[in-house]
Amino acid sequence: MTGTLTTAQITADDLEALARGAAVLGTGGGGDPYIGRLLAAQALREHGPVTLVAPSDLPDDAQVFPVAMMGAPTVMVEKTPSVERIGATVAELARHLGVTPTHIACIEAGGVNSTFPLVAAAQLGLPVVDGDGMGRAFPELQMVLQTLAGIGCTPMSIADEKGNVGVLQTVDNRSAEALARSLTLTMGCSAIISNYVMTGVQAPASLVAGTLSLCTRIGSRVAQVRAEHGDAVGAVAAELGGRVLHSGKVTDVARRTTTGFARGTAVVSGGAGELVLEFQNEHLVARRDGTVEVTTPDLIIVLDTDSGEPVTTEALRFGHRVSVLAAPADERWHSPDGIALVGPRYFGYDTDPVRFDAREAR
Amino acid sequence: MTGTLTTAQITADDLEALARGAAVLGTGGGGDPYIGRLLAAQALREHGPVTLVAPSDLPDDAQVFPVAMMGAPTVMVEKTPSVERIGATVAELARHLGVTPTHIACIEAGGVNSTFPLVAAAQLGLPVVDGDGMGRAFPELQMVLQTLAGIGCTPMSIADEKGNVGVLQTVDNRSAEALARSLTLTMGCSAIISNYVMTGVQAPASLVAGTLSLCTRIGSRVAQVRAEHGDAVGAVAAELGGRVLHSGKVTDVARRTTTGFARGTAVVSGGAGELVLEFQNEHLVARRDGTVEVTTPDLIIVLDTDSGEPVTTEALRFGHRVSVLAAPADERWHSPDGIALVGPRYFGYDTDPVRFDAREAR
Repeated sequence: MTGTLTTAQITADDLEALARGAAVLGTGGGGDPYIGRLLAAQALREHGPVTLVAPSDLPDDAQVFPVAMMGAPTVMVEKTPSVERIGATVAELARHLGVTPTHIACIEAGGVNSTFPLVAAAQLGLPVVDGDGMGRAFPELQMVLQTLAGIGCTPMSIADEKGNVGVLQTVDNRSAEALARSLTLTMGCSAIISNYVMTGVQAPASLVAGTLSLCTRIGSRVAQVRAEHGDAVGAVAAELGGRVLHSGKVTDVARRTTTGFARGTAVVSGGAGELVLEFQNEHLVARRDGTVEVTTPDLIIVLDTDSGEPVTTEALRFGHRVSVLAAPADERWHSPDGIALVGPRYFGYDTDPVRFDAREAR
Repeated sequence: MTGTLTTAQITADDLEALARGAAVLGTGGGGDPYIGRLLAAQALREHGPVTLVAPSDLPDDAQVFPVAMMGAPTVMVEKTPSVERIGATVAELARHLGVTPTHIACIEAGGVNSTFPLVAAAQLGLPVVDGDGMGRAFPELQMVLQTLAGIGCTPMSIADEKGNVGVLQTVDNRSAEALARSLTLTMGCSAIISNYVMTGVQAPASLVAGTLSLCTRIGSRVAQVRAEHGDAVGAVAAELGGRVLHSGKVTDVARRTTTGFARGTAVVSGGAGELVLEFQNEHLVARRDGTVEVTTPDLIIVLDTDSGEPVTTEALRFGHRVSVLAAPADERWHSPDGIALVGPRYFGYDTDPVRFDAREAR
């Protein structure tokens, strides 16, 4: 792809741009892109490029297997799974289902989980679907458009880097989250999962199309605009149909780690007052002077003001000069069921959802 | 069986004696026998009696599926699984393995887990093996003679009463314990498991033979001797080749629940001074005046002095008049590998194992 999108293949050379763009859509979560990119580069060099297929081009009888990393990406750096182990996690689920996977997919857009599936695709010699189940990153397994479409998270496989593997079949997608989360914690906070298996009929209706292309385009634009000493932050906003909410310095960051998630607040001070970000892995609420400006499910993105590089919630530091962008989420997230699944109240914030409005004046 | 052991069938009428004897071998743990007995009675009335097969009578190509309840038996009372769900947990593992179960077995001797497998056996119409994997109760999955014999705990199935089910495949039996334990906690502290599948060749070498017969015999003797106003406690000691260490009143019980286990100490005061029991679900160490008299793996059993009924560590109360028995464990537990797996140091007690000596004078 390398930014031009004229080919339908992803090579090792595309990974830098792809991972950067994915971290933008990761909205502060989704993991540091470094480790996913490293593994994908190894797999693509070893097994060759991966073909990209649009959801609408899938044959009806396609068997699409999403693959993801569950847990804390920081831990994954120390417990890197082998390329083979990632493919084996897909194979284990395929064996359980008695079907042959034809395509690999991403379940979320995020630094790790947009590149991680490429490892399985390369190793298994399968194409990857150009789309994902969220259009952004969210922290829990049931928070995907597949849940809204009635597609089960299970049967799912879950494995660690040592060779322990489980297959779960649950009564609903939230139970899958609970059981897989407890296994992930026992596996040392890092697990490989494959779930939400879809046919070629189901996939187009329950994926956000074009995510990998979009990630690559965003990542390439940032590099290009930066090389031209242009406004990288503005370029990202333009690609996403979004807007810069605020630019300034991080003047406060408060974090607490509860039940495996990094929760906290960050204050960005600047000319237009203070913007307070509330996050739980991902940035979920942006307030200014006590007024909520944007909430989940819309995207709240923090970029380094100078470089345009995405900043994860884990990397936010006092004194960091950042710009905060907002951009619209996939329309399906704004349905009543979508809001029940990923709206601010689900995360414990006492506010109704506030949609991003691109036209709003500042 | 009903105490005479002339038939090789277990009927609903045998369950009272069986469950009582199993709670004796449960050495304070293994769960309150009531719920297992209730479920087994329902299954045996509905599906008819279950045939008992000696391990040595198993055909070589037998596929023996142990079944057990994992977690806190007190919780199980509130979340009773259906008879069908227990059979389905065996069927799920059988499906995964691609084999047809021919026999059901007990993985431990204990109030719940000696009767629980009868539910699966009755429902699936399979005979049950007269034996178990411990000859007593222990708290963790890897603590079975199968581990010493090199038999894997996994593939194992694990299910809750709602219909959530998992199949685990682990690199060793201790990892199976860790992962299944975390699932059990998330399932609400109570799960149905099937594991340690054995062939008819493997089973005789890795089971303690005759456990269900022994449990029934002990349970019947207690009822019989009590009816004759005899010494029920002495009768139990005689059946087990054991000895009464101490009789007296419980004068102190200290409990703390850590990582899912009920740990603590109990002091039994009487004519011959004080006997201190240290327990973790099961009674594991008995000390008198600072000297260790008996430790795990040998059996330390607490009975109600008047009735001869077994008393679980959960039911121990201040003022309770009890007798403490010791009895020898299966010889294989005293091997170096056995001691490493279930000796006092594994449980965190700073003492070498002290074997029970039936000849020792008091």
